[in-house]
Amino acid sequence: MTDHEVILQESERIDDLLSHDLRIIQSDEVFSFSMDAVLLARFASVPKRGRVLDLCTGNGVVPILLTTRTQASLEGIEIQPRLADMARRSVQLNELETSILIREGDLRELVNETGHAVYDAITVNPPYMPLNGSDLKANTHQAMARHEIGCTLEEVIQACNRLVRNGGKVSMVHRPQRLGEIISLMRQYKLEPKRIRMVHPRAHLEANMVLIEAMKDGKPEVRMLPPLIVYNEQGNYCDEIMDIYYGQQQAERTKEGGN
Amino acid sequence: MTDHEVILQESERIDDLLSHDLRIIQSDEVFSFSMDAVLLARFASVPKRGRVLDLCTGNGVVPILLTTRTQASLEGIEIQPRLADMARRSVQLNELETSILIREGDLRELVNETGHAVYDAITVNPPYMPLNGSDLKANTHQAMARHEIGCTLEEVIQACNRLVRNGGKVSMVHRPQRLGEIISLMRQYKLEPKRIRMVHPRAHLEANMVLIEAMKDGKPEVRMLPPLIVYNEQGNYCDEIMDIYYGQQQAERTKEGGN
Repeated sequence: MTDHEVILQESERIDDLLSHDLRIIQSDEVFSFSMDAVLLARFASVPKRGRVLDLCTGNGVVPILLTTRTQASLEGIEIQPRLADMARRSVQLNELETSILIREGDLRELVNETGHAVYDAITVNPPYMPLNGSDLKANTHQAMARHEIGCTLEEVIQACNRLVRNGGKVSMVHRPQRLGEIISLMRQYKLEPKRIRMVHPRAHLEANMVLIEAMKDGKPEVRMLPPLIVYNEQGNYCDEIMDIYYGQQQAERTKEGGN
Repeated sequence: MTDHEVILQESERIDDLLSHDLRIIQSDEVFSFSMDAVLLARFASVPKRGRVLDLCTGNGVVPILLTTRTQASLEGIEIQPRLADMARRSVQLNELETSILIREGDLRELVNETGHAVYDAITVNPPYMPLNGSDLKANTHQAMARHEIGCTLEEVIQACNRLVRNGGKVSMVHRPQRLGEIISLMRQYKLEPKRIRMVHPRAHLEANMVLIEAMKDGKPEVRMLPPLIVYNEQGNYCDEIMDIYYGQQQAERTKEGGN
């Protein structure tokens, strides 16, 4: 499908997706992906084949990126019809309809459609902010993606428990502030944390992102990976981020000062 | 008390304690302190006054170091009589009898002596290795300090819950492998993780130590502190470790290449 055949809605645009030959429909007013989703798509352990599910998929950025890493059958579920529609059109734009299925629906009810424990791996970039009793008057698309309006952290983790097979992996990106809750909820739902990576904006600053992967019915043993420090001392992206965003070759060229 | 008046037992020696004007009795065969205890004594939030308890105190290195940071009344409890005796003699050697009380006993029973919730802060460097059903034939002093022979991780955390007051702090050093268990046990016993710091031997390696501080009845919100990278790219201690071990002035001198 060419760009002309994709019907863009108001405020939407088509962006290149990192260094890959992929594009994605975004909108500053509705939804655009963040570094969090990019790092999750890189961090997650995904099987070469099988079924992989992305919860809270938004505009589908995670499953679209995962097509560069796996031949697995990819699915994304999104509760907001407007976002699920954006994700479907991005899948079409990249001609990935045979690899990615976008479902519009509520992750709390998905197990009724799919059955228990049918996925080999799950990724999720859930809303970060608890509601804490405050009712958000601005119930916009962005508010719903950022606040636990549609589902709580516990409901996300419970859904993962139901949907992933024993020995399967669940990978999440979240804020470090919630790490205590995340770990104890995961363990409560038989998802044993196995790999954790902290993301710090700079070496001397606190982490502002955590990547965590759990194994269903795994034995307790956490590996704390080397920290990812986003900006180096010169204030530029570190080599790893350069590689993710611009590809190894471009990263090398930029390092050498060329191009 | 002078060195001559301290009766050293077989295999024991007197070491200087970092850059401070403090000394400690050690033994390679029985017990000598590690970087873990040193970092714990630096990491822990301790009140200026009040009562602070160190569980699994070994040769008393943590309370002795804490005298440089607080005027609080310090106590250490150690289950092994041989180690409790070493700790007491080190307290005498430093003439700190009015600041530090060393108890010989079982942390699981301490609350019966002291009463509930009497401490403002607790530090603990517990045995790291679970028994996993294996019976350790070499039931030496060192084996007991390293393996969960005298108490399990859960018993340590349960004791902290009973002994610390509401709003008081519990600081622990442990292996990252156990982080999942530590966090969920802490939360189970109403100790909410608030500050976590990962210690990596080098920037590109996984963490081999975790420092974690919880608040009794605190609200869930974790701060993930900047990572502590022990060795820099040249293979030397980083500035922070140099400062801890040799003091700021010495660290500066060594950086400048002098002395």
